[in-house]
Amino acid sequence: MSDHLDLYPSRLKAYRKPIPRQDPIVHARNQKRWEGPLDEVALSRYERDGYLWFEGFFSKDIIEPFFEELKAMAKDDELMRSDQVITDPNSGAIRSVFGMHHLSERFDKLTRDPRILGMVRQLLGSEVYIHQSRINDKYGFEGSGFDWHSDFETWHAEDGMPRMRAVSASLMLTDNNEFNGPLMLIPGSHREFIPCVGETPEYNWKASLKAQKIGVPDQEALARLAEHGGIEAPKGPAGSLLLFECNVLHASNENMSPWPRSNLFFVYNSVDNTLDEPYAAPMRRPEYLGARETVEPLSMHD
Amino acid sequence: MSDHLDLYPSRLKAYRKPIPRQDPIVHARNQKRWEGPLDEVALSRYERDGYLWFEGFFSKDIIEPFFEELKAMAKDDELMRSDQVITDPNSGAIRSVFGMHHLSERFDKLTRDPRILGMVRQLLGSEVYIHQSRINDKYGFEGSGFDWHSDFETWHAEDGMPRMRAVSASLMLTDNNEFNGPLMLIPGSHREFIPCVGETPEYNWKASLKAQKIGVPDQEALARLAEHGGIEAPKGPAGSLLLFECNVLHASNENMSPWPRSNLFFVYNSVDNTLDEPYAAPMRRPEYLGARETVEPLSMHD
Repeated sequence: MSDHLDLYPSRLKAYRKPIPRQDPIVHARNQKRWEGPLDEVALSRYERDGYLWFEGFFSKDIIEPFFEELKAMAKDDELMRSDQVITDPNSGAIRSVFGMHHLSERFDKLTRDPRILGMVRQLLGSEVYIHQSRINDKYGFEGSGFDWHSDFETWHAEDGMPRMRAVSASLMLTDNNEFNGPLMLIPGSHREFIPCVGETPEYNWKASLKAQKIGVPDQEALARLAEHGGIEAPKGPAGSLLLFECNVLHASNENMSPWPRSNLFFVYNSVDNTLDEPYAAPMRRPEYLGARETVEPLSMHD
Repeated sequence: MSDHLDLYPSRLKAYRKPIPRQDPIVHARNQKRWEGPLDEVALSRYERDGYLWFEGFFSKDIIEPFFEELKAMAKDDELMRSDQVITDPNSGAIRSVFGMHHLSERFDKLTRDPRILGMVRQLLGSEVYIHQSRINDKYGFEGSGFDWHSDFETWHAEDGMPRMRAVSASLMLTDNNEFNGPLMLIPGSHREFIPCVGETPEYNWKASLKAQKIGVPDQEALARLAEHGGIEAPKGPAGSLLLFECNVLHASNENMSPWPRSNLFFVYNSVDNTLDEPYAAPMRRPEYLGARETVEPLSMHD
């Protein structure tokens, strides 16, 4: 485990009070902050809520080929048997595929799309690289939900991400509606770190990616934050984009509709925030969950 | 089992095609139909969708004492240990309490409230009695969902209800919002009967009231009906009322919010549609699930 100062202790033996966030939310400062592409209205909303929603950011024409490529991947037996593919605990269908940008040139190029990369660099105030990429799929009537959690809590405890200086870009590859298990967020929850009780077992990720039991915030803290900030579930057509801060609490419910829900996630981390040893786990996670080798700054793709 | 003609066969050994509804939706006819209290706009909407939603039907002042009485019941150890109380398969918290109108005079009077009873008599075209009453509770962060089903399918197969001539009145005792597991319905699905595959085991209700595995419509039929009619989840403050036809497909998702969801259900059946022997189950269910003894017409309470 890391021997560095741990600003955000978690996976504890006993309860510990929430810790105020120790890091900026928008990392670009002064003149850099104002150079765009996001304006002050968007930036202050991101500071307040912990996320930004762009309904219909890309057109359906642009999104279609990504969805088609995914369907082709699902027919690749060797890939489907690999550790990068996580199956649903109930139905056995695909739940997540990790390392999308290594599997496909199309997805790799998308991580470097100037329209996304510009905003991400501004939010993180530096050059950035991909910490993790994944698809979360929920088939009609089948996809299980994800319980409330902070991604940063896991990336810090299990991957050794030192500070809150990462952002997830989630691109909707299908429509997200009220009934197919859209992402829910608690606005404002990124301003606190909730230390979680329960030590991390070896190989925890093999279980946690199916259903998270460790690193789960206590219900009292969740209830307080939801009472204060409410809950929001952005909905919109395929091509919509969500940028959310690494510590904002989020979850999703089961897909009880016939309509599949397929969301792509690129996690961008600052090149000044590369991984240390895990802060609260007995071992590192695999490269496809937390990059240590491929951390060169991303260059824009035109 | 019943030796009467079975218009709606279910719990079958093999797949069978959906059957068009054999019964009227609004049972009051001609002049009786027009005598109110529901007007033609409401009646034709009920015929089209299979439900009617009355946001804020009762004021919160009227609803409050019911919720208080429920909280008092939850402290009654003897009641909580009885068969009428169903616990959540995951959390062990209360999921349902049956026979509410026998447990409490306040709830009994509510079943005879003229504002509800008038509409129900018109929809069913006769005097009515209570087939079943229950509370469905979902605590914050804890309540499991209910998979898609038709109530009539169960009442016909397991209770011997001959025809589609019953209506549920669901009164919200708490606010129902997007995140606390509101009831979802498929508008128009009451116009078909979906025969279900799988025979009814003995004492099926002991498992089915926690999580229904038998009498579950196939996904192909569900998808077709949801594509055609969409999915709706009426939301509103405590005191809102939903009237829904006995054969409309409905479900609900988990409560992922801190806000409890508590809905009261009174199932009204026509006195001309009293129970026969079960059409597709080896034994009758208990009186608190399907009334056979107390079937006198309800009189209005003022």
